Amino acid sequence: MATTPAVSSRQRQVEEDLVRIVLASFDDTPDPRLKELMQALVRYLHDFIREVRLTEAEWQHTIDFLTAAGHITTDHRQEFVLLSDALGASMQTMNVNHEATACATEATVVGPFFVEGSPEIPTGGDMAAGAPGEPWWVEGTVTDTDGNPVAGARLEVWEADEKGLYDVQYADGHLAGRAHLYTDSTGRYAFWGLTPTPYPIPHDGPVGRLLDKTARSPLRASHLHFMATAPGLRTLVTHIFVEGDHLLGADAVFGVKDSLVKRFERQPAGTPTPEGRYLADQTWTRVRFDIVLAKASQAGGGEPRAIHA
Amino acid sequence: MATTPAVSSRQRQVEEDLVRIVLASFDDTPDPRLKELMQALVRYLHDFIREVRLTEAEWQHTIDFLTAAGHITTDHRQEFVLLSDALGASMQTMNVNHEATACATEATVVGPFFVEGSPEIPTGGDMAAGAPGEPWWVEGTVTDTDGNPVAGARLEVWEADEKGLYDVQYADGHLAGRAHLYTDSTGRYAFWGLTPTPYPIPHDGPVGRLLDKTARSPLRASHLHFMATAPGLRTLVTHIFVEGDHLLGADAVFGVKDSLVKRFERQPAGTPTPEGRYLADQTWTRVRFDIVLAKASQAGGGEPRAIHA
Repeated sequence: MATTPAVSSRQRQVEEDLVRIVLASFDDTPDPRLKELMQALVRYLHDFIREVRLTEAEWQHTIDFLTAAGHITTDHRQEFVLLSDALGASMQTMNVNHEATACATEATVVGPFFVEGSPEIPTGGDMAAGAPGEPWWVEGTVTDTDGNPVAGARLEVWEADEKGLYDVQYADGHLAGRAHLYTDSTGRYAFWGLTPTPYPIPHDGPVGRLLDKTARSPLRASHLHFMATAPGLRTLVTHIFVEGDHLLGADAVFGVKDSLVKRFERQPAGTPTPEGRYLADQTWTRVRFDIVLAKASQAGGGEPRAIHA
Repeated sequence: MATTPAVSSRQRQVEEDLVRIVLASFDDTPDPRLKELMQALVRYLHDFIREVRLTEAEWQHTIDFLTAAGHITTDHRQEFVLLSDALGASMQTMNVNHEATACATEATVVGPFFVEGSPEIPTGGDMAAGAPGEPWWVEGTVTDTDGNPVAGARLEVWEADEKGLYDVQYADGHLAGRAHLYTDSTGRYAFWGLTPTPYPIPHDGPVGRLLDKTARSPLRASHLHFMATAPGLRTLVTHIFVEGDHLLGADAVFGVKDSLVKRFERQPAGTPTPEGRYLADQTWTRVRFDIVLAKASQAGGGEPRAIHA
């Protein structure tokens, strides 16, 4: 226990007795991992309540907060993921599951806007699908940590439009700003998207009110989401961030890692485009993002591991 | 931190850096108490994730659990209170807010079934209001810790019927098994209720599934709920439990305190009843429960207090 409240020894005994019987109530849990999780949860939860001397009004407020979060959550709005994100819990979970290996690309949070069933695009295709924003050419390779190109790796990519909204945040159910594609036989991929722009996480719910009360901004640093999967390699969920974005140091979900910040080269209107795409008088940007996937057997996967006292 | 995972020093640095920036994000919180709560929450939450090396599948399961709890919660079904109860968090919150004083009656959990707006009954009235069960005569006094009788103290009482259900768990919206009454000028109260019987907490939702997976029973020890309020005295929320109940040591919400276990005297059918109530050939029980309320100024109220390192 990190800190101990100033209470009488009798009171301390009452509190410790309770922790003991709650822990013991989980002793017969058949699954040893579930038992470990529940008993650790009980220890931390009770330590928290005892350290801060949680008042009954604060307890009630917590119940009300969770209830409001549950009621605003739908198939397309996940307030508990936002809460986890805003507390850094999502990012810490990514950290403990993706221990930094020598050279594999770093992981970051999934966020609440990944949706199964994105359309497939060919190499050089446009994942924006009409979503508004500045065209952006993304290209790179997928290799393993030995430098071998990975052919046929599946890349899921998704991002917000220049209004700061993902397709699923519109009421009309249209699909845009998300796609999947595959690397070619040399491990190369390329696609058109939209130059990422900053946007707020949904802040009209309980998490938004919490951010407001704690004087925190709901803005996320500009980014595009990637998920890369390939047989025998560890699935990577990550972002690419925009060099120079003033929000890099103040991302609402703590997702920024230096290695994921990339230089976006802005191209004047009229600059010849890859794939000969016609952009009239629009500017566009380009970036290179080479992805390195760890072997599935490398340290840092999703398996629990030994704990030392 | 209680335990430390076996990770590389580089990985430890990544994890600790994240904790540091998440803590710092709450530095500008205007309300110092909210700042304290959020920063303590961040510390314990991240320590938990790091100690157990929470997997991404376990994180997703937690999100799904909270979502299901939110979606089953209504005005009359509070799954987050059940969760808090089943983890002993409700009872620990009661503990830290109601530090045992020399002789005040001990507090226990509120539970999810208290409803505002109960009907008033006179001294000796029947709070069962037709709910099925064995009649039970409850009487006692309300005094302060100096032994002075408290006239006009308000007692809210509520309980399940012999089927194990509170009125609000029936679909028809009827009101039974809950009432409020006042002590008379000598501090005395008395009412008819139903001999408490064991019942399960609602276990058809995510908390029920958690209890099942952890080999825990959803049964609560037999009890009736009291809430006693009087000007200048600390509000008391408590139960009265039944001596000899085999569930006293295995209450699903950890609410039992020895001082709240009372002897129920069963009366053979035909025994003359208080208030001359006609019970035909029914048995009935009687119990005495004298309530002692702490002064509102006595230690253990809902205010946060000093923490020592």
